[in-house]
Amino acid sequence: MSEVEEVDERVSLDLLKHKMAKFAKERDWDHFHTPRNLLLALVGEVGEVSEIFQWKGEVPKGLPDWEEEEKIHLSEELSDVLLYLVRLADMCGIDLGKAALRKLQLNAIKYPAPNKYTQHP
Amino acid sequence: MSEVEEVDERVSLDLLKHKMAKFAKERDWDHFHTPRNLLLALVGEVGEVSEIFQWKGEVPKGLPDWEEEEKIHLSEELSDVLLYLVRLADMCGIDLGKAALRKLQLNAIKYPAPNKYTQHP
Amino acid sequence: MSEVEEVDERVSLDLLKHKMAKFAKERDWDHFHTPRNLLLALVGEVGEVSEIFQWKGEVPKGLPDWEEEEKIHLSEELSDVLLYLVRLADMCGIDLGKAALRKLQLNAIKYPAPNKYTQHP
Amino acid sequence: MSEVEEVDERVSLDLLKHKMAKFAKERDWDHFHTPRNLLLALVGEVGEVSEIFQWKGEVPKGLPDWEEEEKIHLSEELSDVLLYLVRLADMCGIDLGKAALRKLQLNAIKYPAPNKYTQHP
Repeated sequence: MSEVEEVDERVSLDLLKHKMAKFAKERDWDHFHTPRNLLLALVGEVGEVSEIFQWKGEVPKGLPDWEEEEKIHLSEELSDVLLYLVRLADMCGIDLGKAALRKLQLNAIKYPAPNKYTQHP
Repeated sequence: MSEVEEVDERVSLDLLKHKMAKFAKERDWDHFHTPRNLLLALVGEVGEVSEIFQWKGEVPKGLPDWEEEEKIHLSEELSDVLLYLVRLADMCGIDLGKAALRKLQLNAIKYPAPNKYTQHP
Repeated sequence: MSEVEEVDERVSLDLLKHKMAKFAKERDWDHFHTPRNLLLALVGEVGEVSEIFQWKGEVPKGLPDWEEEEKIHLSEELSDVLLYLVRLADMCGIDLGKAALRKLQLNAIKYPAPNKYTQHP
Repeated sequence: MSEVEEVDERVSLDLLKHKMAKFAKERDWDHFHTPRNLLLALVGEVGEVSEIFQWKGEVPKGLPDWEEEEKIHLSEELSDVLLYLVRLADMCGIDLGKAALRKLQLNAIKYPAPNKYTQHP
């Protein structure tokens, strides 16, 4: 497999950011994409995800009993959350990928992995 | 700049997924990471983002008047939303990157860009 | 106006609680109304309210420029949030009316009204 | 028990509305209480409720295993959701109590109770 295809398979936050920016520009939607508008749109999409899960009680990992159609619906709503999140970060001048890596490092300091200190050779 | 560093700079959803999985495994947190637990954690983090914006009225793009500290706080809360979203998709067996690209294509069909049809040679 | 009518006009949280309980019982929905199911339903309805406000930018008090139809839609979504909130509190064994009065008192202690201390006779 | 005490026990939405209005006025907070500010504050409080439930898996009705302190915490966060909801409706010129009664009637039409039609004398 070539280098280009490999990079293609790894969808980056930067790629999504550029695609969202292009999408908004082509439709003349930039003036709609203020930080608080996008935040409320994000909340709306989180609501849609919640509606999918709301009457199900606890749900096992991998959603083994779900219809394929329902999983596709979920994947679309999770995508909407992601796309608005990426756009919100962009409109706030925040590099979301870098911020996420930094937050993971902060989390690792806040919650040290126990086995790191109890490993034996 | 070398190839590796360039790839490093483009943070992918796959990279975050693997880091979250490793993080949870090292702390024995996998049993906490059920779909609905993660969804509620996501809602909690969206709430934290909302608290940052709640009393500000409309906010211009780029957050020009914000203190650096407040922007860092925001970047951390947006990251938390992203990390729980990535983990939720993973626990649902959904490839979030592919799903987001597919959703962008669906959106392009639903909302055709007007200039595509009015362009002159 | 008689006593009964006056009480009728003042919709109490208790009244809504009893109506929601009756509504669920008549439809055999009690088993759906677990705390986390109701919480996710509440999040879903908050999402619907957010969708109404999402692309509007700042909105003045009283919504002077809104169509009547849109105000009715908003009143329905706000009602859904309220009804699920009332039901969630009930299923958690919490007296929401008493709790709200108590919280108002706590808030008054946390944020003392300045003029209380500067009033002159 | 006297009439006054009985009315006191039935906390109405109108009572909460008036208390919130007085509270805001005394602190000169009216200018903060725009519809979208209040909506984001509501989302923030829903996030706080979600944080209480997030790592618990399914939770039985009545929260039998919860510490008293945790139930009090929950009652405070549910109250915050209610108080912002009441204030948001007020700032939108919506009578939340009437709207909720109307929505219950609409729900009863949308989801007719089956036993109403199968009852035998």
